[in-house]
Amino acid sequence: MIPTIEWKEGVVRLLDQSQLPGRTELLECTHVDAVAVAIQELKVRGAPAIGVTAAMGVALGAQSVLDTDVPTFERKVLAICDRLAATRPTAVNLFWAITRMKDVLQANRGHVVPEIQSRLVQEALAIQREDVAMCKAMGQKGAHLIHDGAHVLTHCNAGALATAGYGTALGVVRAASEQGKAVHIFVNETRPVLQGARLTAWELMEDGIPVTLITDSMSGVVMQQGKIDLCVVGADRIAANGDVANKIGTYAVAVLAKAHNIPFYVAAPSSTIDLSTPSGATIPIEERPGHEVTTINGEAWIAPKGVTVFNPAFDVTPAKYVTGIITEQGLVTPDRIAETFGE
Amino acid sequence: MIPTIEWKEGVVRLLDQSQLPGRTELLECTHVDAVAVAIQELKVRGAPAIGVTAAMGVALGAQSVLDTDVPTFERKVLAICDRLAATRPTAVNLFWAITRMKDVLQANRGHVVPEIQSRLVQEALAIQREDVAMCKAMGQKGAHLIHDGAHVLTHCNAGALATAGYGTALGVVRAASEQGKAVHIFVNETRPVLQGARLTAWELMEDGIPVTLITDSMSGVVMQQGKIDLCVVGADRIAANGDVANKIGTYAVAVLAKAHNIPFYVAAPSSTIDLSTPSGATIPIEERPGHEVTTINGEAWIAPKGVTVFNPAFDVTPAKYVTGIITEQGLVTPDRIAETFGE
Repeated sequence: MIPTIEWKEGVVRLLDQSQLPGRTELLECTHVDAVAVAIQELKVRGAPAIGVTAAMGVALGAQSVLDTDVPTFERKVLAICDRLAATRPTAVNLFWAITRMKDVLQANRGHVVPEIQSRLVQEALAIQREDVAMCKAMGQKGAHLIHDGAHVLTHCNAGALATAGYGTALGVVRAASEQGKAVHIFVNETRPVLQGARLTAWELMEDGIPVTLITDSMSGVVMQQGKIDLCVVGADRIAANGDVANKIGTYAVAVLAKAHNIPFYVAAPSSTIDLSTPSGATIPIEERPGHEVTTINGEAWIAPKGVTVFNPAFDVTPAKYVTGIITEQGLVTPDRIAETFGE
Repeated sequence: MIPTIEWKEGVVRLLDQSQLPGRTELLECTHVDAVAVAIQELKVRGAPAIGVTAAMGVALGAQSVLDTDVPTFERKVLAICDRLAATRPTAVNLFWAITRMKDVLQANRGHVVPEIQSRLVQEALAIQREDVAMCKAMGQKGAHLIHDGAHVLTHCNAGALATAGYGTALGVVRAASEQGKAVHIFVNETRPVLQGARLTAWELMEDGIPVTLITDSMSGVVMQQGKIDLCVVGADRIAANGDVANKIGTYAVAVLAKAHNIPFYVAAPSSTIDLSTPSGATIPIEERPGHEVTTINGEAWIAPKGVTVFNPAFDVTPAKYVTGIITEQGLVTPDRIAETFGE
């Protein structure tokens, strides 16, 4: 399994995804600030992976607080939580994981600081373990959607690299493959950051699952030519009405899929569902720097200097375009999100 | 005016578009092979520009034939025509321009070789002049479609650089701008070769027309957000039934436009209309090397080495997605192409 995120005593070790596929470099974060920067600079990305990393960031930060006075300790750890929560606005798993860490903090006020620190580490590790388990469960629940010989289109990276391992959308693909089904994945390169080309193509090749790389502009034509049986993508946030925020370009894939009568599935753990967000209209969409579009890796210029750029990192796919949402609990239609996951 | 293509005695001078926007380099072709390679390697691209360049290539090649015997001369010039016709398969303007040159060859059999050579040069220059005139006429006929304050989405480069000057889709935008209307262009970067980012953004900035660069994956979301009033693109071939072959990604834009009730126009000279092609199904679609997708400018790798790539250079937009086709003769709906342009 690809070691996306690892906890070593006093160190959060991240596979630096911004260097893939050229270099496999491990980033050793010994301070919470390094964790926050890694999230901001997309060295680790993917909603579930961001959640796990942030939880480990809280545990790491809490270890560096030297105060033995519990209220002071708690205040400082809450500030660390705020620092990590400010890294990226769209993926709800970030806030969900941080809330879990805050809950541990609050529930253990009666203990001494070293004990609280230890319980925070345990919680971060639990979040990581559960993430892998949820991905595997999603795979089991979703694999029947992929028939033997299926051609699947995916966008961005909702794979092992986007999670603590195994993947959401690619977890479903992996599970079908493990069941002995032949599957062929078409992957959109996913501009501007190229997660499809750099990460999805790479991890599928590592696993020996056949993959064809296309530009985002080709997803229409591969559907038109009958090359695609279904689409499966991940999600950064799913609103109560079933609207799905995911990597920029997902919406276009969904509209194209509907125009070609191709099923469009979203695979995400229940931690991606945010019932406090009524619809996609209120999901905050991160706008990232223009240099992601005008340069490759911040270096080679591929556009005139000074050009105006619009660079939203995510878009919202309305529920009506979503055939079904695969979670660790099973397949649900988007209109049933609120009743299925409500208290 | 940007000097896309120039004829100097014995030289075809091309602006090397593969170097833009970083470098403005002129390519001096003194042999027909250099012209053919320039077309193949996309140093000159855009259906009308390819037509003009091929005509000049024929004239240049004919000048280098030293035989004074007319049948031998004709045979050698026809071989030159074949060489140029084999450069790219999709844009019909290439074959149209070469046919015009062949017609001149045939019509002047009674003359001595130097006279035929001179008439071939005159024909190539006429094709160039007419191309600019057709672009300006298209601008006049199409400008009313763009209202004051309009936001226009375009894909690829159907501008001055794609023609002998002024442009087809961008010619319509220029004409509206020259009429004093405020226009704002959103341009898809147009992967893999980035003609939108490198060429369209550049030439609009040169002309002071406001432009916002987006990735191809963002055209859905800008429509969803109400930022786009209409789409205008060029064409490489228009079939008798109104189906339109154009740069890969055009089809997706057209499907998205229809889903958002946004008009989708195609601007192209009548030389792009090919009544001998009944529908888009029989338009040959060039498939180009995978390194266009996996590298930037054949250098920086942005995907795992050895990955399988599908790289069709064009796609076909069925007539039902096309609101109207703007030619130098005016606006016509795609269903009226055959009757309007038939003999």
